[in-house]
Amino acid sequence: MTQTALDDLEAFVLELNGVSAEAILPLFRAENDLQDKGTPGAYDPVTAADRRAEAAIRHLIESRFPEHGVIGEEYGEDRSDAEFVWVLDPIDGTRAFIAGLPVWSTLIGLRHRGTPVLGSIGQPFLGEIYIGSAAGRARLVTRAGERPLVTRKGVELEAALIATTDPEACFNSRQARAWTALRRSTRLARLGCDAYAYAMVAAGTLDVVVEAGLKCWDIEAAVPVIEAAGGRIGDWSGRPLGRTGGDVVLAGDAALHAAVCAVLQSPSGT
Amino acid sequence: MTQTALDDLEAFVLELNGVSAEAILPLFRAENDLQDKGTPGAYDPVTAADRRAEAAIRHLIESRFPEHGVIGEEYGEDRSDAEFVWVLDPIDGTRAFIAGLPVWSTLIGLRHRGTPVLGSIGQPFLGEIYIGSAAGRARLVTRAGERPLVTRKGVELEAALIATTDPEACFNSRQARAWTALRRSTRLARLGCDAYAYAMVAAGTLDVVVEAGLKCWDIEAAVPVIEAAGGRIGDWSGRPLGRTGGDVVLAGDAALHAAVCAVLQSPSGT
Repeated sequence: MTQTALDDLEAFVLELNGVSAEAILPLFRAENDLQDKGTPGAYDPVTAADRRAEAAIRHLIESRFPEHGVIGEEYGEDRSDAEFVWVLDPIDGTRAFIAGLPVWSTLIGLRHRGTPVLGSIGQPFLGEIYIGSAAGRARLVTRAGERPLVTRKGVELEAALIATTDPEACFNSRQARAWTALRRSTRLARLGCDAYAYAMVAAGTLDVVVEAGLKCWDIEAAVPVIEAAGGRIGDWSGRPLGRTGGDVVLAGDAALHAAVCAVLQSPSGT
Repeated sequence: MTQTALDDLEAFVLELNGVSAEAILPLFRAENDLQDKGTPGAYDPVTAADRRAEAAIRHLIESRFPEHGVIGEEYGEDRSDAEFVWVLDPIDGTRAFIAGLPVWSTLIGLRHRGTPVLGSIGQPFLGEIYIGSAAGRARLVTRAGERPLVTRKGVELEAALIATTDPEACFNSRQARAWTALRRSTRLARLGCDAYAYAMVAAGTLDVVVEAGLKCWDIEAAVPVIEAAGGRIGDWSGRPLGRTGGDVVLAGDAALHAAVCAVLQSPSGT
C-alpha cells in the first residue's frame, strides 16, 4: 500500500468515527433499549447504541468502498476474504457504557491482505480518536488539535503501570494466578478500562495491558496504533497475535513485553 | 442552616472546583512530579497536582472563611473543631490520574457541627461537577448547563449494577469473599473508578458501590450528593457512617442498600 492510499484511508477512519459518534452519544446515559444477548447466567448486554453505530459505520463503508469486507461484533461477516476487510466493535466496553462510565470506546480496524494496517480507538464523549497506521504514524486527534502518540520506553518491570479489565470475570484460574504474579512484580495496577487502556499505552501513561479471550474486534484496531506508537503487542507467550484475537499482552516496548510474558509463563504465574 | 446560606456555600463550592481544576488540568497526562509517599512495599503515589490543588482550595477557603476548619488528604487538619469544617481530597484516584485515565475526581465536602451538609464530586477533564446539599437538591453542573441528579429506584438485587475499585488491593480476605458473594447475586460489576462511581450512583446509571477502609476525605463529600439524589449511604452493616470513613455501601435506595448489606453479612459472604 502506498503512503497516499493509507493517508486517504486514515481520513476515512476519522469520518467513520464521526458517524459512529453521532449514533452513540444521544444514547449515552440515556434510554438505550438495553437487552441481554447472553446465554442464561452469562449476562451480555447490548444496546441500540451498539447496533445503530455499527449499522452507520457499515453503511458508510458500503457506500464508499462496496468491494471491502466487514467483520463486526453486532452484525457478523460480509466478504471477509476481500483484499480490504474492516474489523469493528462499535462500543468496546458496553458494560462501562451502560454504567455511565466514559471509558468505553469505538474500535475500527482495517486489514489489507490479512494484515492490520490501520486502526482507531475513539472515545467520542471525550472527543478523542487515537489512530495509527502501518505507515508508522500514530496520533491523538481531539477537538483542540492533534499530537503524536509515543509509548513510554525503557520502563523496568518493577516500575511498570499495568492494567486489565476484570480478573475475576475474564481470566480462568491459571490466568488469574498469572495476573496476581504480575501485579506483585509491578508497581501499580488499574482495572475496568477495556480497550481504552490500549489507548493509554499508546499515549505513554500506562505501560502494560493484559487481557484474555478476546475476539478479533476487541483488539485488531489497536495493533497499528500500538505498533506505530513504538509499543509491542503479542500473545501471553510473546508470539504474534493471530487473526482471531485470543490472549493478549500490550507493552510500551519489546523488552517490557518480554519481561511481562516471562512472569505470565513462570511456574508461580502458571 | 438556612436555605440561603446553603445556596451561597454551594456557589462557593463551584468556585473551589474552579481553582482546583486550574491547578490540576495542566498536570494531567503531563510531567507532574510523581512521588511515592507510601511505606516500602506499599506504593502510594502523590503528584504536584494533588498538592497544588489542595493548596489552592485551602487558600481560597482561608481568604473567604478564615474561621472555617479544613481537613485534607495532603496537608492535614486545621481548626477541625470549628463550626464549619471542609473535608478535601483534591484528587481521589491518584492511581487513575497517573495512568492517564479520566476517572479520578476532586472531592470537596462541608461539615456543619459535625454533619455533612454540602459536597461535590468534580471531574474537570470532563467538565463535570456532581453537587448536592442537605437542602435536598442534587445536580450535575457541566459547561453545557445543569440537570437534577436522581438515583435509580426500585432495582432488585439480581438486576443491580455494582462497582468497587480494586477487590484484590482494597479488601481483606473476608471482605473479598463478601464482594464475590455480592457479584454472584447481582447482574454486573464494574471496577476501577474510585469516587467517580459514587457520582454514577447519584446520576442513576450505577446502583451500588462497595468500598472498604476509606478515610473521611474519600467519602464525606459524596454523602450530601447521594442523599439529596434519593440514595442511601451507610456502612456494610447498614448503620450510618461515622466521621472517620471506614467500610461503605452506597445504593440507589434504602431497600437495595439493605439487600446488599444482607449479602455482605451473610455466612457465604463472610
